[in-house]
Parts: sequence; structure tokens; C-alpha cells
Amino acid sequence: MNRVLQARRLGVDTYQEPVVFMRADCDICRSEGFSALARVRLTIGNASLIATLNVVHSDLLAAHEAGLSEAAWQGLLASDGAEVHVDHPEPVESFSAVRGKIYDRPLSAKDLGAVVSDIHAGRYSGLQMAAFLTACAGQRLDLDETEHLTRAMLAAGDTLHWDAAPVVDKHCVGGLPGNRTTPIVVAIVTAAGLTMPKTSSRAITSPAGTADTMETLAPVALDLAQMRSVVEREGGCIVWGGAMRLAPVDDVLIQVERPLDFDSDGQLVASVLAKKLAAGSTHVVIDLPIGPTAKLRSTADAERLGQRLSVVGSRCGVQIRLIQSDGTQPVGRGIGPAAEARDVLAVLKNHVQAPVDLRLRAIELAGAVLELGHAVAPGRGNALAAELLDSGQAWTKFQAICEAQGGLREPPAAACRHEIRARQPGVLRAIDNRKLARVAKLAGAPVAAAAGLELLVHVGDTIEMGQPLYTLLAEAQGQLDFAGAYAAAHPDIFTIEEAV
Amino acid sequence: MNRVLQARRLGVDTYQEPVVFMRADCDICRSEGFSALARVRLTIGNASLIATLNVVHSDLLAAHEAGLSEAAWQGLLASDGAEVHVDHPEPVESFSAVRGKIYDRPLSAKDLGAVVSDIHAGRYSGLQMAAFLTACAGQRLDLDETEHLTRAMLAAGDTLHWDAAPVVDKHCVGGLPGNRTTPIVVAIVTAAGLTMPKTSSRAITSPAGTADTMETLAPVALDLAQMRSVVEREGGCIVWGGAMRLAPVDDVLIQVERPLDFDSDGQLVASVLAKKLAAGSTHVVIDLPIGPTAKLRSTADAERLGQRLSVVGSRCGVQIRLIQSDGTQPVGRGIGPAAEARDVLAVLKNHVQAPVDLRLRAIELAGAVLELGHAVAPGRGNALAAELLDSGQAWTKFQAICEAQGGLREPPAAACRHEIRARQPGVLRAIDNRKLARVAKLAGAPVAAAAGLELLVHVGDTIEMGQPLYTLLAEAQGQLDFAGAYAAAHPDIFTIEEAV
Repeated sequence: MNRVLQARRLGVDTYQEPVVFMRADCDICRSEGFSALARVRLTIGNASLIATLNVVHSDLLAAHEAGLSEAAWQGLLASDGAEVHVDHPEPVESFSAVRGKIYDRPLSAKDLGAVVSDIHAGRYSGLQMAAFLTACAGQRLDLDETEHLTRAMLAAGDTLHWDAAPVVDKHCVGGLPGNRTTPIVVAIVTAAGLTMPKTSSRAITSPAGTADTMETLAPVALDLAQMRSVVEREGGCIVWGGAMRLAPVDDVLIQVERPLDFDSDGQLVASVLAKKLAAGSTHVVIDLPIGPTAKLRSTADAERLGQRLSVVGSRCGVQIRLIQSDGTQPVGRGIGPAAEARDVLAVLKNHVQAPVDLRLRAIELAGAVLELGHAVAPGRGNALAAELLDSGQAWTKFQAICEAQGGLREPPAAACRHEIRARQPGVLRAIDNRKLARVAKLAGAPVAAAAGLELLVHVGDTIEMGQPLYTLLAEAQGQLDFAGAYAAAHPDIFTIEEAV
Repeated sequence: MNRVLQARRLGVDTYQEPVVFMRADCDICRSEGFSALARVRLTIGNASLIATLNVVHSDLLAAHEAGLSEAAWQGLLASDGAEVHVDHPEPVESFSAVRGKIYDRPLSAKDLGAVVSDIHAGRYSGLQMAAFLTACAGQRLDLDETEHLTRAMLAAGDTLHWDAAPVVDKHCVGGLPGNRTTPIVVAIVTAAGLTMPKTSSRAITSPAGTADTMETLAPVALDLAQMRSVVEREGGCIVWGGAMRLAPVDDVLIQVERPLDFDSDGQLVASVLAKKLAAGSTHVVIDLPIGPTAKLRSTADAERLGQRLSVVGSRCGVQIRLIQSDGTQPVGRGIGPAAEARDVLAVLKNHVQAPVDLRLRAIELAGAVLELGHAVAPGRGNALAAELLDSGQAWTKFQAICEAQGGLREPPAAACRHEIRARQPGVLRAIDNRKLARVAKLAGAPVAAAAGLELLVHVGDTIEMGQPLYTLLAEAQGQLDFAGAYAAAHPDIFTIEEAV
């Protein structure tokens, strides 16, 4: 029986999941009984992956062709007309552990190793990954499982080794729009002579990740050799971790998690720690913003997550220092990649209109990193951080890092802007971070780098009727309208109470 | 801005999920910032649905065309060149309740009503449905949530009303390959004059559902009017519920659940009861097979599930009678649609080689239905059932029902067969139902109706070296080989111990 078809690049982008298009009347569909959404193994030469089948009932393809989506094409290193062997994939045995977890059977180190390795090899469908993420979401992973997941994610990628010690890092457990301290902290800390090879991720459920923001200022998709050269020259970098093979399964899961818009304590801890361990970090400061609409709702939540980070971190050999911070409102003015980048530049340049809240947070975090990394005596971190910022040494270092990464550039400006105004006067009591973040996402952030918003008020301000609360930013009118409609339908993003 | 494209039927089968293919350089992708896997709203005239976007970077399509998958084409009642309006869908608000459930917040009646209604309207992606199913899996739904889900599923479809009372039904909580009693029970019970309008489902995770098996004997995809006419004429029917609008969301969820291969107590109860309520049933016998490799592993499991079925059933107005049965090994000889149909025929025709276990189970269940439906005095059900079977009245009635449904036909024979033989002699102590079911599925069941297997031995039999244990059945050699390889790698499906 002929199980070979000829590869054809269809130019269809299906994101992460490889898809193969095959004619219903082709030899293989007929003899193997494959039907739509079947999982099939494709092999070209030495490259092999599992793809989801879309069955074609038209002349879009010839019966001897296998139409490949971009993910399948690239994963198979295909060329037009190459012989594609098609057969049944082995059943994915590791998924039975996921099924067990749904019935509250704990996941062993072996289970999670197999799950992560199968995901890494492209053996899980999107549906299976969604089930795995959901089964592990909330509080469903215990400390042991979290440690196993961390080690499995670490093992599925490369690990960096640095001659310097300590190797410091910082991480913020998201949920606070605009809180873009990382580029500032790296500039301060490396200006003090510490080594901080920072790998950041793109947004999961937020309007911007550090990598998204930093990309508007300099190239971030560096490979390992490029990153190493930047760090050797400048002591630090701010690059996108996904361009390397550091805990790469994390990035695959993020693609599935994003449209679901939820997180998991265990997966969050594993994701953070695996990335840090893979980057060779030895000392990490973790910022935990707390607020009613932040990711962490209460001190209890922050302590629970912090505890998990510390314990699992210490088991895996990384020293953690936790900082709980105010998560009641956004930090800085901008929300969205380019808007946040402008805030970062203003702070580094000691601009008179630089957002004070962003500056103070960056100083506090940099101070903690300086102390944890033994660059300064305990209690003296903040003062040193402020000094490095005020003197311009941090800004000089930041420019040098950007140049080393490929060149400092200007963040893009939004083509479309629209002011959202207060519908009632009073005192601003609260801002709903989640809904405000959703507005920025509906406007196109983070995919559209210039999209997002600029916040013009803070909690505690006295607001006049009709006063602008924020400016919507978009790259296209359709997205501006769409975000504007959502904003108009949700005036409760801002709680404004009449002054008594 | 031009948000209109021209419909083009691509003939691509993506199963349940509507997919739209649009050029990356089309006006809409450019102005709206849509990227791959975005969810977009498509409208043609009055028909509207949400589809998943695949972005095309080739000349597969023209820039003014919207390529529609079969599900999108049919859902939009499209015609070639029709104007397709494309815009952003409203955010699916009900998914925030699913997110809450992941963090252990209970789902209210309103929440589940909204989730089911959004799924019904095609607003959930496959990933979102997988997350919903996983969040509700295992024991995660309580009695209230199960009742809410039942009522929501019922409300999302049509409900049948019958003049007759009582309206009886039976249901088996799966997990036992080959246990195809339903067609026999319907024949016996309607021969006794009761009304039993049986709607069955296709297989979820098993090699055959009753609808799959029955379809090899007679048409089952009847619409409401056709079904009503069959029941009015014969007192009963055995049709596929999915061809009607009875709790239709259940069928959508099944498409997602099938590749995940797991179930959920709450969703199982809601699925069973919503279908029964929608079909107008008032009295239902539920068979709960128990065994180490059946769906219900222990008496405790069966009691827990039975309790949930009884309580929720009674709250929703249907009387339940539970029967716990032996689930340690398959029932009958055949596993797979056609093979099971042959067993059903053998029992109804009182064939000398008819499987005794299948006959006895059908009699027990039919007896319980007869008693619950007040067709006979308590304690006399089994005797009446056996009498109706032995006298040929059940067979006559079955033929009449099949004729009324469109004509009795012969189940298809498998083109490829292969005997699996014992590798050691001894006494057969146990059969792994799950792995045996997997063999039948790998051979192509239930999609390939003739595929599956014929079991040739029972637990307790003395087995000789090389004795045939079962015959694999497939429609294609590739599938036979595939199932055979799995069978060869898993001799532990049969536990054969040396006789002492």
C-alpha cells in the first residue's frame, strides 16, 4: 500500500499546531480510514511530527498531495514535492497520567517528564494541552508536582552556564498593567557590575510582556551565541527567551493558555523557575503585586504563591527573595508595548514627566537585587540604585545594552487615538486592572505594538466631569472602535465616588 | 472600510469547528489586525457564527475571498460568492464562569445556562470546550451544578411530548464492550405494549454506541416527525438522538471529549438525564456495570453515581431505577458496530449460538423496565421478558420497528480478519476491558462499522497454548496491522494463570 504523498506548501498559518490537508479520496485516507481531526504522523527524511488532519473534498489539492500548514512545513523542513510518509501515531501514553490527574491522582516525576517530553515532541493536540493546563490549573498541583514540572520543563531545553557568580535576576508575577520595571532594573544592576542575563517572555494574558515592550526599543530575538556575546560585553541583556531553547515547552503551553486567559499556580511557578534555572540564575528577586484586580488578590494569595516559589526554588538550587508590592492600580502611564517603552525611557533619562511610581518600584526592586547579589551591604540597596539612576549611569548602560543587542530604536506611535472621559465627577477610588487590560488588548496589544492606552489619572485623584481618564491607542480604526465600544459599555472600570 | 469578502467553499472538513481561511494581505486582516487562530464573527444574511481564522500566505485564495470549511459553509447556509461580513466577536462572557470554576467557584444555574447557550451558538472554540470539560471532569460538579447543567442542556434543545404514559427508557453507563442490550430491550418492552421512544448516542470513548450498532441494522438518523411516526405505529424506536435537536449541546461536547477519552460524573449525569427528559421519558432503568476495568471500578463508585442520577433525576421529574451488574468482562461475542449487531440478531432470533450472557442481561433489564412501567406485577418482569423473547414476539416487533425506520438490513462483514492466539496455557482469570476496547478502536471502530473484534473466550475458561482468543476485524489492512501491533504489544489484556 502506498503511504507516501507529495508535500505541498499551502501557506496556511495555523499557529503552533501542525495541520495536514489530505484528499478524502487519496489512497491513505481510504486505506487507513482517517477522518477529519485524526492525528497522523508525518515523516520527511529524518524529521517527523504529529499533525491534525483536515480532510479535503474539493480540488484544492490533488489526491497525491499532502498540503502542509506553515507549522507542519517548518517542523518537517519540507520542500515542494518531497515524499511525505503518513501513518498512525503511537497512542500518547503520557496522556493517561493527565486523565488520572483529573481524577485527583497525583502526577509523578516520571509522569510529568513524559507529558512535557511528549508536548515538546509535538505529540499533544491543542485540545490535549488545554485539558492538561486545566487539570493543573488553580491550586491543583502540589509542591512535589510543581518541582517535577519545573525539572521536566528545564530538562526539555538547553541550560546556560556563566563564569560569573552570582547570576542575578528578577521576576514580577503579572497582573499589573504597565508595571515595566525590568529594563530599568537590568540597567541599574548591571551598571553596578552584577551579571543579569535577562530572558523575558511575551504576554500570556496581559497587554504586553517585557519582551514585547523591549522589542519596540531593540531587537530581542537573539540566539544563544548573540545573547552570550551581549552579556560578556555589558554584563546583562534583556532578550526574548522564546528565541532560545530555554524551557521551550513553556512557550508552547503559552500559545494554548493565551486564548483561555487563565493561569495556574503550579504551572506559573514551574514556568518562572524553569526559565530562571535554564538561564543559569542563582539569585532571583520576585515581585508579588497584590490588589483586588491584580493576579494576586490578597496577602494570603501572595504568601501562598511566594511560599511555593521559595520552596521549589530552593529544592532546585536557586535562592529567592520575595517582595510584596501594591497591586491596586496600574504602574506608569502606558499600557501596551510601545506606550510602556516610552515610560521606561522617561525614567532612565530622568525626564521631568517620568512616572514617579514606576521609578520608585524600579529602585526598590533593583535595591533588592543589589543586596541579594552582594553588590552592596544590606539596607543600602535602594540608595545605590537611586544613585545609579540619577547619575545617568543606568541610562548609559541601557543604551550600551541596546546597541549590543542590535541597536536602540524609537517605539512606534499609534496611528489612531481616542480619549475616554469621565461621565461623573468625584474622587477616583479604584481602577479595575483586568478590565483596563482587556481594553488595551481589544485595541490590539500586544500583537499591535503601538496599541494600548495611556492612563491619565491615579487612584485618589479628584476627577471633574468630562475629564480625560485615558487615551486609547490603536494601529487601525477597527480596533480603536472595538476597544472604544467595550470601554463605553464598561464605565465601571473606574470607581468614581462623589466627594462628601 | 470594507469588511465584506466573497464566500468560497473550500471543501475542507474540520469536523465541528467552523474555520475561515483569509489572506494575510486582505483588507480585513490588515485593518483589523487579525492573526492566526483569532476568533472572528462571520455573517451571511441572517446566519452568523464564530469561526477560527487560518491565515493564508499564498494564492490558495484571492484577497477578496473568505474560504469556508464545511462546518462554516453549512452553518452560514452559504453559496459561492455570497457576501461574508467579518468582524470581531463579542468577548464570550460566560467563559469567566469556567475560569472561576477552575479556582473552585461553583457554577450557578445562570452560569451554566450561559455556558451551554454560548456553546450551542458556536461561540466556544475547541480549546475553550476542552477547558470547560476538564474543569467539570471527575467529581468536580456537585448535585446543584449537575442539576443546573441538566436543565441548561435540556433548555438548549427541543423536548418531545407523548400522549402515552408512562414513557419508559433504559440506559447503560458505558465501559463494558459489547454490552448491546438496548435493541433487545426495546423489542421486548414494546412487544409488551409499553411506549419506549429510544434515542441513543454514538460512541464517546467506546468502540460502538447503540446508535452506531443499530445503524448497521436500519436507518437511525431520523428527524422528529419520522421518529414520532415510528413510535405511533410501533410503540417504540431505536434512533440516533443527534439527528434531532434533543439536548444538542451534548453532541457538540462529545466531539471534543472523544479525542480526550475521559468522562465526568456531573457531565455524564447531565448528558443522560437531559437526553431522557428531552425525549419525554418518565421512567428510566439505569444499568451500572461494575468491574476493575469498567467505567465504574467498584460498588462505591456505582453507588455514588447512582445516587447522583437518582437525586438529580427526581429533582428534574424522572423516576430512576438502578441496576448494578457484572462489569468484569465484555458481554456477547462482538465488539464494534456490526459485530455487536450480529449478536443482537442472534439473541432476538433465539439462535442456538446466541451469546447467553447478552440474552440474560437483556431479560433482566427488560424485566426491570416492565416492572417500573407497571406492565407487570413486581417480581414478574423477568419471566414476562423471557416469554416475549422465546415466543418470537420480540423478534417480530424488532423487524417491524426496523421496517418503520426505513428497512431492516444486514450488518457489513469485515474485509480483513486476523486471529489473536494465546501465548501461554492456563485459566483465563481476567480481561482488561479498556485495552480490549482500544484494540477494537485501533482497528477502526466505530467509524469503520465492520471493524472491531469477536471475542472467543470467557473469564474462567481453560485456555490451551495457541488457542484463538479473539478475531480482529477491520475494513482496511493498515488498520488491521495497526490494531494487531498494539494487541501483540499488550498480551496483558488477558490474564492467563497456569492451572494448579
